[in-house]
This record gives sequence, C-alpha cells and structure tokens, in this order.
Amino acid sequence: MHILITGAAGMIGRKLTARLVNDGVLSSTPIDRLTLVDVSVPPRPRDFPGRVETVGTDIADLAAVRATIAGRPDVIFHLAAVVSGEAELDFEKGMRVNFDGSRVLLDALRALGEGYRPRLVFTSSIAVFGAPFPDAIPDDFHLTPLTSYGTQKAMIELLLADYTRRGFVDGVGIRLPSIVVRPGRPNQAASGFFSSIIREPLVGEEAVLPVEESVVHWHASPRTAVGFLVHAAGLDSSRLGPRVNLTMPGVCCSVAEQLAALRRIGGDTVVARIRRAPDPLVARIVAGWPSRFDAHRALRLGFKPDASFDDIIRVHIEDELQGKIAS
Amino acid sequence: MHILITGAAGMIGRKLTARLVNDGVLSSTPIDRLTLVDVSVPPRPRDFPGRVETVGTDIADLAAVRATIAGRPDVIFHLAAVVSGEAELDFEKGMRVNFDGSRVLLDALRALGEGYRPRLVFTSSIAVFGAPFPDAIPDDFHLTPLTSYGTQKAMIELLLADYTRRGFVDGVGIRLPSIVVRPGRPNQAASGFFSSIIREPLVGEEAVLPVEESVVHWHASPRTAVGFLVHAAGLDSSRLGPRVNLTMPGVCCSVAEQLAALRRIGGDTVVARIRRAPDPLVARIVAGWPSRFDAHRALRLGFKPDASFDDIIRVHIEDELQGKIAS
Repeated sequence: MHILITGAAGMIGRKLTARLVNDGVLSSTPIDRLTLVDVSVPPRPRDFPGRVETVGTDIADLAAVRATIAGRPDVIFHLAAVVSGEAELDFEKGMRVNFDGSRVLLDALRALGEGYRPRLVFTSSIAVFGAPFPDAIPDDFHLTPLTSYGTQKAMIELLLADYTRRGFVDGVGIRLPSIVVRPGRPNQAASGFFSSIIREPLVGEEAVLPVEESVVHWHASPRTAVGFLVHAAGLDSSRLGPRVNLTMPGVCCSVAEQLAALRRIGGDTVVARIRRAPDPLVARIVAGWPSRFDAHRALRLGFKPDASFDDIIRVHIEDELQGKIAS
Repeated sequence: MHILITGAAGMIGRKLTARLVNDGVLSSTPIDRLTLVDVSVPPRPRDFPGRVETVGTDIADLAAVRATIAGRPDVIFHLAAVVSGEAELDFEKGMRVNFDGSRVLLDALRALGEGYRPRLVFTSSIAVFGAPFPDAIPDDFHLTPLTSYGTQKAMIELLLADYTRRGFVDGVGIRLPSIVVRPGRPNQAASGFFSSIIREPLVGEEAVLPVEESVVHWHASPRTAVGFLVHAAGLDSSRLGPRVNLTMPGVCCSVAEQLAALRRIGGDTVVARIRRAPDPLVARIVAGWPSRFDAHRALRLGFKPDASFDDIIRVHIEDELQGKIAS
C-alpha cells in the first residue's frame, strides 16, 4: 500500500508517520511506500523498509501537487493547513493554503481518472461550529464558523462530500477536538493554555492559566487523534453514506477537572506551578468555541476517544516524557 | 442609490429589475443608477429615468467583474448561476459559474477597500439541504447538499458569512423555495412539473404529472421571491447577527393541495387537462428534496411568504396571463 501524507512535518503528521512505520500495515495491508509532503521537506522516517519520498512544496501549486500524486497513492491523509490564528491574521494565506490547496489536491486527484478513487482522509476541525450552541452539539447541527479557518475547513468538507458523491475520491472528513497535550514550547494560540497548564508543570516549569476554571472544552490526545486518522482510513464507505464529515468523540471537561486530573497524577507540587492570570481577550475567544458534542455517529462507526483526561495526561507522559515527571 | 444585479437577464432578474424600476426607490432611497449584468447583455428597462448600464460578461472573469463594480454600487443582487441540472451534468461549469464566479465578485468587492462595504444579497437555495430530513427542517439544521449545485451554493453561503464578519461586504444570503409558477415553456428540470401542472392547464394545454399527489414541496411565487430580495436589501445587519444565511418562508403543500387550489380557481375543466404519467426517476429525485421548513428566523425578520397556494396561482394569472384563464 502506498500512503501519501500532506502536512507530514507537522505535529500530527510526524506522529502519524511514526505510527504507520511502526505498524507496517494499514487496515491489515502492508505499507510499502510513503510519500511525505509539507511546505518544507519533512523528516525521513528511520526503520521503514519500503520506498519513501519526501517532498517540500506549496500545496496550492497545481503542477507540484500533480507530480506528487502521479504515483497514485491508495490512501491520502490531507493534514496540510495553516492554523486558526494565522488564517485569521492573514486572510489570503489562509484561503490559499487551507481552501485552494485542498481544492488543488481534490482536482488533481479527479484529473487522474481511469477509475482511480483513493481514500482521502481530511482533517477538519470543531472550528466549523460557531456560537451560540446547544448544550451538546448534535451531529446534524449547522456549520456557522466564526473564524476564517473554520470557514475554509467547512467549505472543504462540502467539496469533499460532493467529490465523494460524484466518485472522484473516497473521502472522510474528521473534525478533530482540541489536541492536548501538544508537545513543544508554548505558542500564541488562544487555546495554547489547555496544553501549557499540563505540559509545563510536568517538567518543573511555571504555566499561566488565563481563564476561569469553569471553562469547558473538548479534548483528544495526539495519540488518539492519530488513531482517528488510521480508523478513518479503513472505514467502510457503505457505513458512512453521503454525510462523510464526522465530529470526533473527545473528552469533555472543565479546566477544574483538568487540574484535578493533573493533581491525581502529579500531586500538589506539580499543580502549584500554575499561576492564575486572567486574560479577558482569551476568555472572550474561548467563550465562542464549542465545548461539548454528541458524537454518536463517530462512536457508532468505531472511533475511540481517550477514556478520561487522566488518560490524556498519561499519554503525554509516556509519549513525550519517557514516563518521567519533575517532582 | 446605485444597484447592481448579476443574472439580470434571468427570470427573477428581469422581474426584480421591473419591480425596482416601478418602485423607483429601495428602502425609501431613490434609485438613480442600475447596472445590469448577465452572460448575455440583459434587456434595458423602459421607463427608468436614471442611468442604466447593461453588461454581458462571464461572472468568473475577474477583470470584467472589476470593471463592472468600479462604480461602487450601494446594493448588489447576486443572482447569476447555472441551474441545478446543468451544474450536475457539467461539474466544471457549475464550479466556475456558481462558485468561482461568486468568489471573484466577493474578492473584487474586497479589493475596492477604503471603507466600501456594499449590501450584497445572494440567492441561495433549499438545495443546500439533503435527505434524510426531520419533519420540518429547523434554521439550525446542517447543510448536507446532495447535488453539486447545492454544494456550490452552500460554499458561497460560508464565504459570504466570513466576508461579512470580516467587514469586506455586508451580506445576506436567502435560500429560495422552489419558484412556482415559472413562466415560459416546460423545461427538463425535475421540478418543472410543479409549475407545468398549473401553467399549461390555465392556457388550455395538457400537462403531465409524473409523481404521486402525496408529494409535498415548498413553494414561493416569483413575485414573492422578488419581495424577499427587496426585503433582504433593506435588512438591518444588527438584527441579523453572524448567521447571515436565511431559509425563506414558503407555502408547504402537497400536489393534491396544488390541484385543489387549481380547481377552486380554474374549475374542473382546467384540472382535467392534467394527465398522470408516473415517472420513477422524477419521483426518486423529488423524494430527496426538502419539503417543509421551520423558517421562523426569516419570519421574525419580516420576510413575507405567499399566503396560500391559491395566492401563488392568482399571482401567476395576474402577472403572466393578464388575468385571463382558458376555460
């Protein structure tokens, strides 16, 4: 099986690559070829016995994308995107990468024709939803994004469904929860604190909590997000029907519940490294985000969420900290 | 006030032009300039004392669209589109006209800048919804189009909302019901019979009914559709909020109720001109269409539906038949 990953140099892209290399199979079929694409050349995986191409290209460049897919990959994970904050600050860049880039990929796949119809797994986002919300957002809630990022993702969801209906690709869109704990350094994203308040205290550093502990959000660990992608790749289209875009199940919890989980795992010393510094701007942004979903369609289709926020923290400690906590 | 209409040569475009010329004002402001655009040069209205430009252009041609809007119209009615059947048969044409054409217009307006932010009324469609449906489709039901036409309209709804949120335009999208009675000759649209079974018998001709009388649909007269457009042009954005796309209120009735209305108005002789000829293909297509909406948002915002299907027939007799029925 030949697998293509766009956005392969990103956090999820690298973890997905590592998972596929480690598994050696996808949906029980051996993987013999990987094509890894990103705006800068992605790292080449070690210990993969098959053929690997790593490509640095602009995803909105039609000629480059055509060359990249000429090998007719069986499964494509389309992760490439600029993040929410950047798409909001630079409207044209967001449209070019998130929308035009995806459309170029879809059109290049369509142009190959001759019965070629790869499974295309697209990472969408819960940012396709915008307040006001019901208590739990049902699978049939309308898409009313309040960011350009969410708008671009929602437009590609529509296109993915139509390209799938017409038989140009075999698409599945998955709306990822907020990914915590993100490894690496703190970033400027308004959602950054959800990871920061876990990640920094666990390595002995201070973290800032800019919102009330009553704030509720929808989370998945990076490992679980990669699990969603792998499960989506093997999903039977006949079980999916025409509504190919799915809200993924997450762990719904308040910041207070996050902190309680951190205390259970790391103790009082770790939690004491969190400093309260209310930031009205962050609080206002976060208030516009969806916090709770009724993701019964995805659950019925076999997508497996993290069991608890405790598990999300444990995944981070296992995958990023070699099992060690700074006491 | 300067008003631009794209798709001005179409059925709704011509009726909207006639209404504006007749009123002489829009939202109490005198109209002194009209720019009428379509793929072929639209007819020039008689009896309009102001300035009129008629332009034949491809709506997806950026340079042509830029030239057309250089006069900075205050209100734009964006009606230009290829219809559902054509967008389904010719995917690339549908994407180019319905999606790219609308995006080109939005981008050209954005590029004018300097505080220019015209009211842009976009005609969307109930084709943004796809089966299965609840009994009455609420305003917050998700968009799951089952045609390329519906997909293209839904994508522009999303873009319109984002361009409005960012202050590039002041958009309102209105999802029109099926328009009956369409004047003119029978066409190949699957929905054509809804008009045909009223229009042909009223002028002494035979019409074919391809579905069961139990089929239920959502209708508006051309006059009422024009009324929706005019009302949308004057709508206060602060009452609209970020959800700028609205399902218009229609008359929900079965074919049996349509026929009963025709009998009340035209008598048995007229209804006897309808021949039953069940067509399983048409029946199947129609079964996938939405039939009943809870359009309370639009009603609260002052949009006025036809009062009954009897009224829809009377509008047709007044506007198209000079009040006369073939007995």
